[in-house]
This record gives sequence, structure tokens and C-alpha cells, in this order.
Amino acid sequence: MAGIADGRLTDGRGRDRMIHYAIEKQGGEIWLRQKKYEPRFALKTESVFAQCNGYMGVRASLGLPSLDGKKGMFIAGLYNRAYEEEVTELVNCPDVTGYELVLDGVPVLPDSRCLTEFERKFNIHTGELVITSTYELESGASFCLTDRRFASMENEHLFVQSIGITMQKGCIKHGGICTGIDGQQTNSGVSHFKKVNCRVYDRKYLHVEGYLEEDTLSILEGVSYTGEEEEAVFTLKRRGITGRYFFSIPDGGTWEFTKYVYIQNEKDSLGLDRQKKLLEKCSEAGYADVFLKHKKIMQDIWRQARIEIDGASPEEEAAVSFAQYHLLGMMPWHSTDCSIAAKGLTGEGYKGHVFWDAEIFILPFFQYVFPQAARNLLEFRYKGLDGAREKAEAYGYKGAMYPWEAAVTGREETPLYAALNIHTGKANKVWSGIKEHHVTADIAYAVWQYYSVTGDRAFMERFGYEIIFETASFWVSRGQWDEKRQAYVICDIIGPDEYTEHVDNDAYTNYMARYCCRLASVLAEKLCAESPDLYRELDRRLGMDRNRKSWEEFADRLYVPVPNEELVIPQDDTFLSKKRIPDIEKYKKSQIKQAVLLDYSRDEVVDMQVLKQADVVMLLNLFPYMFSKEVVKKNVLFYEERTIHDSSLSYCAHAQACAAIGETELSWEFFKKCMVIDLDDNPNDTTDGIHAASLGGIWSCVIFGFAGISFSDGRLNVSPRLPKHWKEMRFSVKVYGHEIDVKINRREVLLESREKFVQPLSVLVNDEIYTLTDTLSVKCKDKEEDICA
Amino acid sequence: MAGIADGRLTDGRGRDRMIHYAIEKQGGEIWLRQKKYEPRFALKTESVFAQCNGYMGVRASLGLPSLDGKKGMFIAGLYNRAYEEEVTELVNCPDVTGYELVLDGVPVLPDSRCLTEFERKFNIHTGELVITSTYELESGASFCLTDRRFASMENEHLFVQSIGITMQKGCIKHGGICTGIDGQQTNSGVSHFKKVNCRVYDRKYLHVEGYLEEDTLSILEGVSYTGEEEEAVFTLKRRGITGRYFFSIPDGGTWEFTKYVYIQNEKDSLGLDRQKKLLEKCSEAGYADVFLKHKKIMQDIWRQARIEIDGASPEEEAAVSFAQYHLLGMMPWHSTDCSIAAKGLTGEGYKGHVFWDAEIFILPFFQYVFPQAARNLLEFRYKGLDGAREKAEAYGYKGAMYPWEAAVTGREETPLYAALNIHTGKANKVWSGIKEHHVTADIAYAVWQYYSVTGDRAFMERFGYEIIFETASFWVSRGQWDEKRQAYVICDIIGPDEYTEHVDNDAYTNYMARYCCRLASVLAEKLCAESPDLYRELDRRLGMDRNRKSWEEFADRLYVPVPNEELVIPQDDTFLSKKRIPDIEKYKKSQIKQAVLLDYSRDEVVDMQVLKQADVVMLLNLFPYMFSKEVVKKNVLFYEERTIHDSSLSYCAHAQACAAIGETELSWEFFKKCMVIDLDDNPNDTTDGIHAASLGGIWSCVIFGFAGISFSDGRLNVSPRLPKHWKEMRFSVKVYGHEIDVKINRREVLLESREKFVQPLSVLVNDEIYTLTDTLSVKCKDKEEDICA
Repeated sequence: MAGIADGRLTDGRGRDRMIHYAIEKQGGEIWLRQKKYEPRFALKTESVFAQCNGYMGVRASLGLPSLDGKKGMFIAGLYNRAYEEEVTELVNCPDVTGYELVLDGVPVLPDSRCLTEFERKFNIHTGELVITSTYELESGASFCLTDRRFASMENEHLFVQSIGITMQKGCIKHGGICTGIDGQQTNSGVSHFKKVNCRVYDRKYLHVEGYLEEDTLSILEGVSYTGEEEEAVFTLKRRGITGRYFFSIPDGGTWEFTKYVYIQNEKDSLGLDRQKKLLEKCSEAGYADVFLKHKKIMQDIWRQARIEIDGASPEEEAAVSFAQYHLLGMMPWHSTDCSIAAKGLTGEGYKGHVFWDAEIFILPFFQYVFPQAARNLLEFRYKGLDGAREKAEAYGYKGAMYPWEAAVTGREETPLYAALNIHTGKANKVWSGIKEHHVTADIAYAVWQYYSVTGDRAFMERFGYEIIFETASFWVSRGQWDEKRQAYVICDIIGPDEYTEHVDNDAYTNYMARYCCRLASVLAEKLCAESPDLYRELDRRLGMDRNRKSWEEFADRLYVPVPNEELVIPQDDTFLSKKRIPDIEKYKKSQIKQAVLLDYSRDEVVDMQVLKQADVVMLLNLFPYMFSKEVVKKNVLFYEERTIHDSSLSYCAHAQACAAIGETELSWEFFKKCMVIDLDDNPNDTTDGIHAASLGGIWSCVIFGFAGISFSDGRLNVSPRLPKHWKEMRFSVKVYGHEIDVKINRREVLLESREKFVQPLSVLVNDEIYTLTDTLSVKCKDKEEDICA
Repeated sequence: MAGIADGRLTDGRGRDRMIHYAIEKQGGEIWLRQKKYEPRFALKTESVFAQCNGYMGVRASLGLPSLDGKKGMFIAGLYNRAYEEEVTELVNCPDVTGYELVLDGVPVLPDSRCLTEFERKFNIHTGELVITSTYELESGASFCLTDRRFASMENEHLFVQSIGITMQKGCIKHGGICTGIDGQQTNSGVSHFKKVNCRVYDRKYLHVEGYLEEDTLSILEGVSYTGEEEEAVFTLKRRGITGRYFFSIPDGGTWEFTKYVYIQNEKDSLGLDRQKKLLEKCSEAGYADVFLKHKKIMQDIWRQARIEIDGASPEEEAAVSFAQYHLLGMMPWHSTDCSIAAKGLTGEGYKGHVFWDAEIFILPFFQYVFPQAARNLLEFRYKGLDGAREKAEAYGYKGAMYPWEAAVTGREETPLYAALNIHTGKANKVWSGIKEHHVTADIAYAVWQYYSVTGDRAFMERFGYEIIFETASFWVSRGQWDEKRQAYVICDIIGPDEYTEHVDNDAYTNYMARYCCRLASVLAEKLCAESPDLYRELDRRLGMDRNRKSWEEFADRLYVPVPNEELVIPQDDTFLSKKRIPDIEKYKKSQIKQAVLLDYSRDEVVDMQVLKQADVVMLLNLFPYMFSKEVVKKNVLFYEERTIHDSSLSYCAHAQACAAIGETELSWEFFKKCMVIDLDDNPNDTTDGIHAASLGGIWSCVIFGFAGISFSDGRLNVSPRLPKHWKEMRFSVKVYGHEIDVKINRREVLLESREKFVQPLSVLVNDEIYTLTDTLSVKCKDKEEDICA
């Protein structure tokens, strides 16, 4: 029903956006609560409350039949292309959460008069979903129905759902629940499984195997329930199987039914017998026990990931933890065969494709907190090198040109054409797959960032160098010589701001390309001198000798836009000469994304000073020391006036940039908006999945922006600029494999390494150099002055 | 929700089944009415009330979002095979009936507290569906919502839906309706369109094109509504397009919105411009006018098809008319490229495949009432000859072996294996496609029946002879010589009764095979003598000289089971030696179809005297003069005791057989059950479509059985045996292209031909011979005696 509400039912335009969910703290854990039955918020809440463990993501849909939601289960790396004319997409897998309930002849439905109370809540720290509803039947009987679920972090293949019915009044004589595995799910009407096999083993385990072009998904389900009074009845459906289980509940009694589901892509195959045994063990242990094991792992994870902020409001605390929950949940912990999709594992949005979001917005969190996971993400890109080489060659370039949208291979997955314009019938070419090239520098940048912070030489030698060298070769071939400028230029390109297509010398792109080539050139020289064997091996394959000079020369002579007299860095060659859009506030306030395209054609938008999202501002974030504070501030303000923030990647970039120069109040304004991108009271957003990059952006803004953490040239930099009302921040970061607990308040910066540094770590706190062996405390020198700038 | 109700919620087992719907007569038209909102009956009612015009069938789903129904639109002949492992099936096409309604911010939903009254009714004579519901909003406003639809008989491509809102209290300030073409429909989770293109023309017409492997479906939709206050907004969805239209309604006012939809398989392509013009004209004329044109055609059709029965109860009248409505609605009037599916165009059941139902159960109605349509159905089989020849060859036989299940070609569409047994994992072989051969004789039988009644020589010369000769050749090759019997036998076969597999000399099959070969032999001789050119042409292609002797010999020497000492015709060689099933009453009374297979394995069932459906009894119907009344009665009673009637084809066969021998009371018992197969109060039946063959059986039973009409050897036979309470029947049949009005009551049989017979027609009334030129009245000789035996 969300569709019809667009812009008509909502009255929230322009209001300061709020977190839609109530926040409840319980023993250090935070719950988000939806306190009433809200069909309009069904799709959004399903994404926000999704159970994700990095292997699977299960939307937090109601189990009972309902009109308003959209069930979804997504498995990391499980992509398929249904038809030649469709793109490869993350498959919406068979549903395991749905059930029908008939009590004494009455079907129990949330959209009925019988529903008297409803609550859906979600524990950000454990990932547990609890849906509680109370029904009063016409017979006078009333009961409370509880549906609890989690995706296990102890065994990533395990999903558990427990359904409980507690009688508040009266009893149930004939109860029946019908549930199983439903393979009739589609990606919005497109089916993916070319064959679905269904089995029941031992009159107990339901098994569904779905065959895709390249993969086979296997789902095994075991159940346990109180008092097995009557034998279950299993029924084969098209593409699925259901079990019907029967029960009765005395007055005041409770009936419990638990599903243990083992889900795997057959590639990571554990035999059925072992799966059955595992489910058997779960069933013997029970929901609480299995959950406890999961929770312990989660606690360990949170010990590493936690960010404690004294003074932060519950909303702020919730938003930051929420971001981290989903970051943890979207990470394919045990695989290097896939990466992180734009919507994580929570919805069909962006077809589950992987963008630059993964390296630039999401990777930093993992790099500083779970470096092994960060390494996995980059190894995935290494595996994609051949595809990237093919793409470069296809476009007449050298080296490796990464796809704008990736799935499981390095192949470009961006469709060449978007759907036809419904009015003109013309196909809109999707230029981003053809012209948005910065991702190829972004990946090289991420590789070096990862190495800088982790010191993971083995990674560099096996994977990292090759990525950097091959992307540098691409950039050299991508440039062209400009006689007038006597410099290399990069023409006809799209930068991060996708409202400006086909421009020359996009600032972000050119700086990143220069960085990439400079890095390659310096590393090549170093390797040649220090690791001649590796160098020779790389030379044989990549032509190091032949190429390194060109990297150097390109880096030296590539034109990059510099701040003009007003200190503005031109976004590209023509941006500053375009006219401004007259009514930008209208679009900034609109709850409808890209509303500007309803009033202006794409060509008109391209010809105006109007940005979808941060572009130059992103550049400022990635190179925090390159420009003066004055230049940074000028550019943030200049571009913000021209930015609609139609991309969820935008607010966090602005917030971080402002924080980095100590413009904490301005930063806070952006941060407030960024925090609620998924949580606000706009029911039309986040419906097809959470915004993965923005969640990464929240973490970056807090750690890089407010805590002022950065790392370069082997030195940890801490330049805190806490928001006014934040009194203290405590968190940990990993540097060179050492976990450092950081405490920042207005009087002190305290760093404690859990292991001693053998070679003391150089640390810069507020521009003064220190060293860290195990503990470093830097006190505020002048008591009148904040340590946080 | 129907699934969970199976056998648990229903209390109707064993009760005499009733028509679930209220019956209302209005000016000679009959309405079926569902008087309240009944989610459990949603699926069934959607099938029963479907709008069908032979080209399209649209399930009578609620337009507003609802959990319980299953939308469906099926186009005659539009089949597709989605995956190699799936079978070809009738495609569930994009939906055009759904809409969302938001009134002053409140979504209108039938499953809500706001619904105060509900009625869904369906006019059997015009095919119009009217869904009326009353809502009372929380604001206090109340209104009546009406949704009327029909599939036009004037233009088979046209579907019209009109939605009206009449305020009963208060007004609507901001109303919005969101509706369009939704291509996210699947056949139970399987998508068929490999590409879907969407357009809006002239900011007015919505157009969706869906591409299948072989066909392209085009749907063009125009709308008109009262007061176009605000411009419509069109939105592209995945696989569809929606328009949002805005309105307000004053107190006491009415708002009307009408959709005119032009649907075509591009094969029968009318250009878009002409389609638009047609829709424009409709829009100018308005629903009432367009409906009137449709209604006039329907009235013409009913003038030919009507069966008036004085003394029949409203239920009986409704059931007979209902059968005829759906027979008319499933007939592809203008095509010879497809035939009639087991569920007509009302659901996904049996994948939309064509069985012997079409020729043996459905064709008779058309043959006597709309002979051109009957000819179309048979021409479809002629087009399938090549496929049938290929099937014969593949199995090592000669001639043409028709597929047990057909779609658009003559190819066999029966899957080789049914779904895996969920408990054993073994695939059940589907033997009917391999061993159920009688369809190949059924088609030859139908061809000759058609010719006998119509005298359509042109048809025989172009199509009919070839079918008969080729099927005869198949039968000869299918038989084998039995030394002991000194006769040909047909071994390892399945007759109509599918609970008895792999038997030898199935009575039905052997008699039909003999008939087919005898017919071929006689016709060959006649052709050779009377039409030597045609004979030579056929000889060249079919080897007439070579084959005709073998047809004759096979017919002469084929063993057929004859009545034994107890007058029982053995169903096959071993049937009478099998033991009876002990508890057949249990399964006869079960609301669950094929419940016997839950208690016994297929092999056990095969080894018992238990029938799914009429087998020998069918034989008695097809050859009404072959056996004495005594033999017929004996066999009907003998086999009925052993028949569960798990097939909907069974009751009508028994009813007709009993009527034919004057066992009217016994016949009536079967007929009562047959009448309500689709209409009864079992919500779990008819959910995936009406039972086409059974509806044909109702007509046959009334006309062949009760009115005692038959035609053979150029003579019309009328031997009425009206049920006690039927006082008079009036109907028409076409013989040799002459429409004969028949009136039968207890005193008189009156035949009036609308055109004079140049050569008077021989007529047998109650075993006495008369002739008909224009009028024939046969009075009851003895006033004490009924003319109806």
C-alpha cells in the first residue's frame, strides 16, 4: 500500500525528521520498538528490523498473512539472472518465516478485528526480533502470540524462529499451525529457481532445494513443539512444502513451536546428515539455549565494535548502534566470493549490487575494527580483476576498470539501458556503468588504506599491489593530453554526483586518479628496490618496467582542479559556469527522492548547479590533510547550498567533512539527518532495504569526524571535536593488529593498547606528537580549554 | 488461507451438498449471490464467478487488496513453458482488475473494521460481475463501493471494469485510486514473461507488452472518470505500470471510474492506433452502453443455447444455466489454434491443458448448438495431427497417437514424472501420458459424431477423414495377436478410470478402438467408391490401400469384453478377480479428493475393485443402443458401488447412463451431485478453476439423458424421460444446419424447425418413426401414460 501514499498522505515534508521507533534500553542492550500495528510502515520496518548475520538477511515481516509487507530472505553472494533482458540480482529466497494459524476454526489475522495489541521490537545488540500481538476471538478467548527470531552468529547457516501462544482467557481445543518453506517468493514478480525439489525426511525435516543457473540453495527445516499430540501432515505445494501441526492449549497455558532452519548455498556444503544432527541438537537445546550461544558471540563482537558515548541521547546511541548492527549483519564474514550490497541483505533495492559504497563508506569500519573482514572484501575485488581487465579492454583502455555495479564476478552488472521512459518510449541509457569510473580509484585507495592501518604485507603481496598497479594503468589510458593546459585531462566522465554527467575533469575523479597513479609509482619503486623477486614476478605479468614511468608521469602531469579565488574547488571544468536551480529548497525538503527529475529533464539538471550528492566534499573526506580548514569549510558550504542530498551517501559526507575542520555544530546538523536515514518517520524510504553506505558513513562520521581518528604514514592521529553534549567517547580501533581502547573526553585523550607495541606507535594528538607502547594519556593543557577543538 | 482448512474446519462431510450461493432471478436472468464477506470461499468464488468470453477468462477477485484470493487472467491458447523442468502451462497474465483506494488518507480494505456490508454477485446470463461493499470510515463518512465487470462478447479482446463510489454520509475531500496493469502475477511463483515493456500513450493509455517464448501479449488500458480535477500520475513498476487518479466526492455524490482494456496476443494483432480509437469510442459511450452491446450478443447466444424447464427448481435452473455460461465462456470462438482446458479459462488447475474432456464431454453441447464452434475444436485436433504422428512414432506405433494432455500443439504435455514423493524422494511416473490411449479413439468418435449431426462434408474432406484414418492406423499397431483368444488384444493400458493402471483389454478402450477402426474401414470403402479423387489423394499420403484391410481385420477380430453371466461387462481382464475395498463409503463422502491415496498406496489401489470414475459407464453413454437396458442398469449399479467419483467426470456419466434407460430417479441422485460440483459449499474445491467437463456433462445429461435426444444414422431420436418434477423442457438443437426447437412435456413432443427441411428428417420419438419437415407434434397416445418413460 505504500505506493499510493507517495507525497499525498505524508505530512512530514520539511519537518526535522525523527526516529520513528521508540527506544528502550535494557541491561546495556537497545531495543527499537514499533508500538502499534502500522501497515504503512510495514515495508520500512521489515528492512530496519531485519535479522542479518552476514550470510543471510531475513526481512522482519509478520509471520501471519498480511497484505502490507514483502517477505524476503537474501543469501550473501546468491545472485541469478532470470532472463536475458533482466540484470543479475540478489535472489529473494524461499520464505521460512510465514505461518498460518487457525484456532478453533478461526484464522488468526493481524488485519482483523481480533487484534487488540501489537508490538514489533528489535534488539540492536542481539539482532533478535520479537513480534508480540494480542488477539481476542469472538468466542471470548484471548491470547498473546509471540514470534521471536534471530539469525545465528554462532552458525551463520542457522535461522531460528519461535512462535508462542499464551492463553490469557479461555482455552484452545483445536489449534493448527501451517508453516514450512515457501519457494513461491519472487523478486517482484520475477522467479529465479529453474527447479525446486521438495522433501520430507523422517516425517520431521522439511527440505527444499532451489536450482539457479550457477548455484543451488538448500534449506532444511526442523521443528519442535510442546506436546506432540497429533501427527503432523506434510503437503507438497508448487515450489514448496508445508507442515501442519496440531495442538490444544488449556486455560492459562502456553504452546510453543520452534523452527530451526539450516540454509546453505550448496557450494559451502555440509551434508544433510550433519545438518539434521545439528538441527536435532538445536531442538534438544531449545530456543533460549541456541539464542544464548548466538548472543555470546554477539557480545564478543560488540566488545570490539562498541562505541560508548556519555552524554549522547538515547536516539543518538540507538542510531549509532543500529548502524553498527547492520554493518555487522551485511558483512560476509567467511567468504571472499562476494561483497556488500547497497542494501546489505535486507531488500531487493539496487538488485543487491555492490558499488563503491563497499570500499569507501563501509570498509573503514571493518578496517579499524575487524581487519580480517576488510581483507575479505578487498580479496573479493582481487578476484574481480580479470573481469575488470575485460571491461577495460572492451572500452579500449588498459589495466583494470572495475564495474560500477558488481555482483559475484568482476563483470559490469549495470544495465546498459534503464527501463523505457513510459511517456516517450525511449530507453534511457544508464551512463554510470559506462562513464562513472572513480570506483576504479576508490578500490586502490581502499587497498592502501587497509594496508596502512593493518600492515598486512601478505595481503599486499598476494593481492594488493596487483590491484593498485592495474588500476593505475587504467587511469593512464583513461587520460588524454591537453595541449592548451599542457597537462593530462580526464574528459567525459561522471563523478560521485550523478546529476552532473559527461563532464571534464571531475575534481573527485582526477584527485583519486592522481592518488592511484602516484601510489602505484611509489610502490613500484619501493618494490623494485626492496622485493626484487616479487617485482620481477609482477613485471612479467603486468609490465612493471614498461608502465611505472607512465604512472609517475601521469600523476605528475594530471590536471587537478585547485581552489579558485573564492577558495572553491570547481567540481569540474564547467560546473561553476552553470546557472543555479531556482527552487532547490523544495527538493531538499521533499520526501520523494529525486523529485527534481519530476520537474526538470535529466539534461536540464545536468546543465544546472544542482547536486544529487556530495562530490568535492567526498574528496575532502578522503584527503583530510590536503586542504586548509578554510578551503574545506568554504567548499562544504558552497556545495551544500547546491546539493539536494537525494543520495543517502550525502549527509554523512558533509557531516564528516565539517567535523574534520572543527565545525562541529554544522557537522551536527548534517549528522542528525544522516542518523535517521533509515529510522525516520518517512514510510516510503528504506522499504526495499537499509542504506548500507549511509550506515557506514555514520560510523565514519563518529570515529573519523567527532573522535578525529585517522591514520597515515604510520601515525595514529587523534583530533577530537566532540559535539557539545557528548561528554566522553569510548571505543576501540585496531592498528597493526593491536587493539587500542580509546577514551576521549574534554580533559583527556586516553589510549590503551591491549598488547604492548614492540615498536612504539607514533601518535599525534591535537597536533602534538607522542608515542604509544601500552598506555598514553594526553591531558588538556589549559583547563579552560577543551581538548576537543 | 484455504490450505489449512483442509478437512479440519469443514463440517460438511457426507452431507448432501447444496449450492453455496443464493439464487436470484431478475427479468429472466439469473444471479448467483455471495451475500457476505467469506474469505474461505474467495478462491472458489473467483472461479465460479469468472468473466469469460472464450478469448479471455478473468477470475472474479476483489479489486481491492485482499489476502485470500488469487488473481488470474488467462488468454485462450496463451501457453508458455517457464523452465525445462516445468511443463507448458496456460499463462497467468498481468492483472488489470486490482486497485488501491485511499480516501482522505485512509486505505480502503475489505479486511478491515470499516467494511459493513458485502455482496458479490454474478449474472449467469450476461456474465456481469457486481461486487458491492459498504464502508464506514472512522471519520463517520460512509459510502458504497461498486465494482462491475464483464468480458465483452461483442469484441472478445475487450474487458471492462467500472468502479463507483456513492457517498451515503459525509464527503470525500481527497480521494485517490491507484490502478493499472500489474505484470508481477505468476503461476504460483513461476514467472513467464521474459521481458515486459511498459508505456503510457498520450498521458492516457497504459500499455504493457509481455514477451513469452513464442507469443507476445499486449494489454492496452484506457480510463474515463467523472470530473478530471487533477492530472493523473503514472508510475513505472517492475513489470507493470500504475496510474493514480485523484478526485473528491460531495455529500450524497457519486464518483465513477471505468477501465476499458484491450487484450490481445500479438498474433491476432490490431494496431495500437485502432485499439486506442476503439477504447476512445468505448469511453465516449460509457459502461452502460458498451455493456448493452455485449448483452445483446449474449441474448442472441442464449436464444440458441437456452434450456427452459418448467417445474425445475431455481437451483436446478441456475445450475444448468451456469454450466452453459461457462461452456460459452471457455469456447475459443474465433480460433482453431487452441481448444478447451480442463478448467476453461478460470484458473491454473491442470496447467490449462486440454484432455479428452474437450471432445467427449464438452463438444456435444457445441455440436448441437454452435456447430461452427465444434468444428473449430476438431480443426484444432487436425492441426495437432503431426504432433500425434510424432508421438506414435516415438512409441513405436503407426498413425497418430494423440497426447493425453495438449496445449497448443499436438505434442504430449503430460510430464513424464510427477513431483517427487516428498517422503520417499522417488519420482512418481505419470503413466497417463504414456498409457492412457483412449483419447485417440475419443477424437475419432467426436469427428464422426460431429459429421453425423452437421453433415459438414467439407470438414470431413479437409480434416475429418484424415483424423479417423490416422487414429485407426494407430489402433491397429497398438493391438497384438492373442493366440489363446484367437483375437487381437490391447494390453498394458489405462482406461478412463485412472485408479486401474496397466490393465489388459480395458472395456472402454477396446470398444472405442474397434469403433474407430470399423469407422475407418467403412469410410475408406465408401470414399474409394464415391470420391475416388479424394481417396487417391489420401492414399498417397496415408497409404489407404495398404491400411484399410488392416482396419477392417482389426475391428473384426479385436476382442471386446462382453457382459458375463451376471450381465456385468468386465472393466478389464482382471478387474472382476480383484478384491473390493472394504470402506469405500468413507472415501465417497470425503470432501478431500483422492483421499483413498492417503490410506492406500497407488499399487494397492490398482489391485482393488475401486474406481476413481466411470469407465464402463462412459462406454454405455457413448453407445446408447449397444446394450440392453438391463445390461446398462446392471453395470451402472455394479460399478457405482465401486466408484469413489474422485473425478468430476463421474457423476454426470452415471446420471446420463441411468437417464438413458429410464432409471430417472437413480439418474436424479447422480445429477443432483453433478449439478453442484462447482457450486456446492465445499470451499476447497473449484479453487483453481471450474470443472469444464462436468459442466459439459450437465448439458449432456439434460439433453441426451432427460430429453433423450440422440442422433444416429441420419435419424433424430427423442426418447424423453423427464425427472418427475420437470413439467416441460424447451430448447433447440441444430441438425444438418437446421435449428429445431424442441418442446417436451408429458403430453407431447413438439419439434419445430425454423427452416423447412427440403428432404424431411427422419425422427424417432419413443421408438416410433416420424418425419419432420417443419413441425412435428407427437402426442401421448394413452392419456394415462406419460410420454416420458
